Amino acid sequence: MRKKGLLFVISGPSGVGKGTICKGLLRKDSLSLCLSISVTTRLPRSNEEHGKNYFFIDDKEFKSMIDKGELLEWAEVYGNYYGTPRKWVEKKLESGCDVLLEIDVQGALQVKSKIPESILIFILPPTINDLKERLKSRNTDSDEVISNRLKHVKDEIEKAVQYDYIVINDFIGKALERVASIMIAEKCRAERFSIEDYLKGSG
Amino acid sequence: MRKKGLLFVISGPSGVGKGTICKGLLRKDSLSLCLSISVTTRLPRSNEEHGKNYFFIDDKEFKSMIDKGELLEWAEVYGNYYGTPRKWVEKKLESGCDVLLEIDVQGALQVKSKIPESILIFILPPTINDLKERLKSRNTDSDEVISNRLKHVKDEIEKAVQYDYIVINDFIGKALERVASIMIAEKCRAERFSIEDYLKGSG
Repeated sequence: MRKKGLLFVISGPSGVGKGTICKGLLRKDSLSLCLSISVTTRLPRSNEEHGKNYFFIDDKEFKSMIDKGELLEWAEVYGNYYGTPRKWVEKKLESGCDVLLEIDVQGALQVKSKIPESILIFILPPTINDLKERLKSRNTDSDEVISNRLKHVKDEIEKAVQYDYIVINDFIGKALERVASIMIAEKCRAERFSIEDYLKGSG
Repeated sequence: MRKKGLLFVISGPSGVGKGTICKGLLRKDSLSLCLSISVTTRLPRSNEEHGKNYFFIDDKEFKSMIDKGELLEWAEVYGNYYGTPRKWVEKKLESGCDVLLEIDVQGALQVKSKIPESILIFILPPTINDLKERLKSRNTDSDEVISNRLKHVKDEIEKAVQYDYIVINDFIGKALERVASIMIAEKCRAERFSIEDYLKGSG
């Protein structure tokens, strides 16, 4: 019998470095993760491929997926819809593949309510002040935008208690090792182990 | 405020390689584990030091420790008593040190009942047949002793479901990495994290 894969959900405030962590995780051959592919109603950019970066669908299809409960979570961002297709994720899990999902706090809690055995990991900056400095040094947002973001960050962080794990991204290499360790450890949890199968397969 | 340390308990059948794993864990500076020191009524060997290998005490002292509830677990082996001193372990945990305890299944379950937040890790051989081969190749036990051991092993393994984690020692390096990952992951569990303290310390 093939073991079912695990669903790992990673969230954290904008600028915390979760994208870098996810890229690092996907590069680790020992983990053999697959990245969840979202459906979206926004138009593909020139370098994007359907079924690779996103599944590009229209508004009607998206609404039908919501109505049929085919999305693990969804959200509207600047007039476009984004969602995680339940069937795709479940097929990967059934095939024994561990799935990585990088989504915001609201989405993560939606996923947990639908798949309670999913494992939620929250990435935190060493301090909020540190995050402020990081956002400033990017030079892409005005002070007002940054200040609004930081207000939102506190609300987000307060929801981190509903997660399974909290990882502080003080040094990227260390944070990556912590998240990878969580993935390895979760595979060793006794409740996922069948002693019966083990003894049957044991000479 | 200093964070309390975690108590890790490692068990597994004789010959599974748990001693090697524990030695490897203690050598990892990134984990900064301390090994629990047992009390025993047996006489010290010439190379053993009181307070380093064991705390050597007499029968009367040992019985008094049992009566006063000063042992997290204890057992009699070939007429000698061995036990884990509760105060020593708690002092180390309070100081923020993670403590490693290598004991048998019965002892581990005693510890869990007294310190429910302790983390129990069971080391399994790839198959029981593999363990048999390992015990045979040691050339230290008769076939009868090995056969008795293996009967006992099945009973032990059935208790592994009461542990938090099960690690298969297929390759020593991999098993060591899995146990170290469990230790790193446990430190990241959200329930051990104080968002309040974090926000207070955050600029």
